[in-house]
Amino acid sequence: MTKDSTQNAKDLYHLLSPEAKSRQNSPLKDAFKYFKLPNMTFLGGGLPLSDYFPFDRVSADIPTPSFPNGIGAPLTNESKTTIEVFKKADKNQPNEIELARSLQYGYTEGQPELTAFLKEHTEMIHKIPYKDWDLVASVGNTESWDSTLRTFCTRGDSILVEEYSFSSALETANGQGINTVPVPMDDYGIIPSGLDSLLAHWVGNKPKLLYTISTGQNPTGSSLSAERRRQIYEIACKYDLIIVEDEPYYFLQMETYTKDKKAREGKTVHEHKEFIEALVPSFISLDTEGRVIRLDSFSKVLAPGLRLGWIVGQAKLLERFVRLHEVSIQCPSGLTQSMTNALLQSWGQKGYLDWLIGLRAEYTHKRDVAIDALEEYCPKEVTSYVPPVAGMFFTVNIDASKHPKFHELGEDPLKIENLIYEQSIKQGTLMIPGSWFKSQGQSTPPQKNLPQNPAAKTHIFFRGTYAAVPLDQLVFGLQKFSKAVKIEFGLE
Amino acid sequence: MTKDSTQNAKDLYHLLSPEAKSRQNSPLKDAFKYFKLPNMTFLGGGLPLSDYFPFDRVSADIPTPSFPNGIGAPLTNESKTTIEVFKKADKNQPNEIELARSLQYGYTEGQPELTAFLKEHTEMIHKIPYKDWDLVASVGNTESWDSTLRTFCTRGDSILVEEYSFSSALETANGQGINTVPVPMDDYGIIPSGLDSLLAHWVGNKPKLLYTISTGQNPTGSSLSAERRRQIYEIACKYDLIIVEDEPYYFLQMETYTKDKKAREGKTVHEHKEFIEALVPSFISLDTEGRVIRLDSFSKVLAPGLRLGWIVGQAKLLERFVRLHEVSIQCPSGLTQSMTNALLQSWGQKGYLDWLIGLRAEYTHKRDVAIDALEEYCPKEVTSYVPPVAGMFFTVNIDASKHPKFHELGEDPLKIENLIYEQSIKQGTLMIPGSWFKSQGQSTPPQKNLPQNPAAKTHIFFRGTYAAVPLDQLVFGLQKFSKAVKIEFGLE
Repeated sequence: MTKDSTQNAKDLYHLLSPEAKSRQNSPLKDAFKYFKLPNMTFLGGGLPLSDYFPFDRVSADIPTPSFPNGIGAPLTNESKTTIEVFKKADKNQPNEIELARSLQYGYTEGQPELTAFLKEHTEMIHKIPYKDWDLVASVGNTESWDSTLRTFCTRGDSILVEEYSFSSALETANGQGINTVPVPMDDYGIIPSGLDSLLAHWVGNKPKLLYTISTGQNPTGSSLSAERRRQIYEIACKYDLIIVEDEPYYFLQMETYTKDKKAREGKTVHEHKEFIEALVPSFISLDTEGRVIRLDSFSKVLAPGLRLGWIVGQAKLLERFVRLHEVSIQCPSGLTQSMTNALLQSWGQKGYLDWLIGLRAEYTHKRDVAIDALEEYCPKEVTSYVPPVAGMFFTVNIDASKHPKFHELGEDPLKIENLIYEQSIKQGTLMIPGSWFKSQGQSTPPQKNLPQNPAAKTHIFFRGTYAAVPLDQLVFGLQKFSKAVKIEFGLE
Repeated sequence: MTKDSTQNAKDLYHLLSPEAKSRQNSPLKDAFKYFKLPNMTFLGGGLPLSDYFPFDRVSADIPTPSFPNGIGAPLTNESKTTIEVFKKADKNQPNEIELARSLQYGYTEGQPELTAFLKEHTEMIHKIPYKDWDLVASVGNTESWDSTLRTFCTRGDSILVEEYSFSSALETANGQGINTVPVPMDDYGIIPSGLDSLLAHWVGNKPKLLYTISTGQNPTGSSLSAERRRQIYEIACKYDLIIVEDEPYYFLQMETYTKDKKAREGKTVHEHKEFIEALVPSFISLDTEGRVIRLDSFSKVLAPGLRLGWIVGQAKLLERFVRLHEVSIQCPSGLTQSMTNALLQSWGQKGYLDWLIGLRAEYTHKRDVAIDALEEYCPKEVTSYVPPVAGMFFTVNIDASKHPKFHELGEDPLKIENLIYEQSIKQGTLMIPGSWFKSQGQSTPPQKNLPQNPAAKTHIFFRGTYAAVPLDQLVFGLQKFSKAVKIEFGLE
């Protein structure tokens, strides 16, 4: 694998679904080529006049880089900037997306100023090693994933997913009649040899894609190392797979956990270059062939309710997503595009990196508080955990075989999981049982001989998050959860 | 058919697609029932803290009802209102959707303040004659239609569409492998006897739904009369069909056209009650059984780029749309919801009706200018038209058999259509050839014996719009188009 960004991607059109291959351009597009001709009166398009759009000027207060008091600090007159977008663009504001345009039909790919900013950002972070990549706006990764499945798969197909995965992403596939076959994973994510072995023993139509939440995985909190990513990419090339990297948590990467609170101080990333170099390489940064579809989003970085994401991949495949979006979502909200663009243009690439660095500091601190609490309260006899290096989630692994009723309950770890779940609710804390995220798909032959985490048969886990609650509550919650475990295992 | 809004809808679950029937609730939803319990520390959900949302206060300038200078008048200090939405709700503004909520995950059905407003509006306009109807937000009718197809149809199914229909809507179906069978129509829309006959002679699996743009149809500009709607609804009951009414143009209904310019003055609707009573009854207003899915949208009424629509129908069917949206679009943009809601709450139901009345006046005037121009310039020998009573479109019907080369070109009206298209571009105007909107689906047996518009074999049409251009340009464009027709038919 040599990186050569002057080369084009490999032709992977054969991996498209019949649906994606069949999508037609609208014949009306042909007519629109006459739209801008001089002396042409265009009576072809059913566009409402922007005179009737009832929003004339939209403004917002946003924090000003470099966010010296943290990204969550309340705004003051000194720390805020007011951005404005007008119905007709203010000539003094370059790269403004005027409301007359963003609130009109058009630009399925996303408004050009916004996608240009995102392309520049993508180039800076991922340095994609081929030439003809592109970027298309979406209404968030859930929709991007739905569109990806419709672009590559058809009812009855199989895809590969992490053994434990985001239940909503699995349901997207299930609804479309797609079989989600689990790939073995351990505390550090997908086991490359397990993936290779699964594919080597595959019977029937090979899966077309591997879906992975590579960084800060939901639910396990695991992150694939650079080395595993390289191995998995090689396997994808070998078996002609698309890799779908669903990466909402990519910028929620943190410093590695240390118990030594003093040592934490010196570990904070400040400089842009240092920040970028500290990021684990994405699959698309390794993608010499153009077989990675990257799903990116502002949901965890700015706000989920913006419903603004983007898809990165080779242009020839992304063009099929555009045809799909034309007849489904059309494009993200114009208010979202105008305002998010105004925010990004106001911040600039550097201000946006400042924001991401601030986010890294916040999540590092939250994670530290969560792991400190686990260190303090969790009974080491039956629990273990790996401090996450990215994302919103941590897991507490529990050895169900040590539960006093394990034999009595037929050595079924799920029954122990349920006992702990109920006890923890009784104690007043709620974490999500890992089994709720188990992929139910099947491969033929059954993958019982695959390399597995040897503890998998008796180990259960619970997913918690440090993202959503104040830190004192987080500590209190974990104290209560630990108490529930101790009660269940007769340790209290 | 008696209206009894205390009765529930008929059970139509058997009409759902296998995909829709198979959709699962997320198991995580079960956990969320504990979310609000006192003393519960909820570590279950991966929600980012709203402290990190970078929008603190969003405001917009909007016109103030009752829009005495017209809805398109430039805003002045006197005519504008400034609406504001804060991250944390201002207690003085009831029904505000605070950004901390709209920019967070959740509310797939739409934010409650907004859907409550839309439900009240729907009740006021449509008086739905059964009890258990509901309303779900969407990102516009294109997406609503995509979701409707996925909810009722599966690859290989047939649906019924107007013989000429919105090409993008047809492509949505084509992409999903759904056969779009044309229903005969004339200048006034679907011919009820044609629909009945088509279904009576149907061979194979009956279609599950009829898709109709009932008011201001795209591309023909036709609108179904109340009487035709009643007949079509009866047929839908007889053959157990869902009716999908795609109604973006519903509030672009106008006064009937009169050549007498003085008579126009007195015909303007001013009063709310008069306005509502002048609207043609929607299919859902006739829907005693709950078999209508109504697709509604702000695209033509406020702005397309809001990407905000809503679906109305019986609750039990709409619940399946919500399951689909959970794993695709999730919900409309939070900025769009917060700001559109703030606008609607500021206007109130009455102010919104004022806006719609203003819209009616604008479109009536535009339509009048277009038809006046056709009256003045179109060669009566070969052209005809029916002044539209709704929507953005008008059509110019042309008798291709009168073209000097009709016989020479094998009596193929499409060849004449193309000659006129090319000549009109040469003259500097562009209208869209009607054949571009022709549905290509097939029924078995072929529907050649169905009642048809007798002129259909030699008549062609062009679609124009009066919505998108200044009125002087509109007149000039139609003058040029008429010249093209005259040249082609040797009348100049």
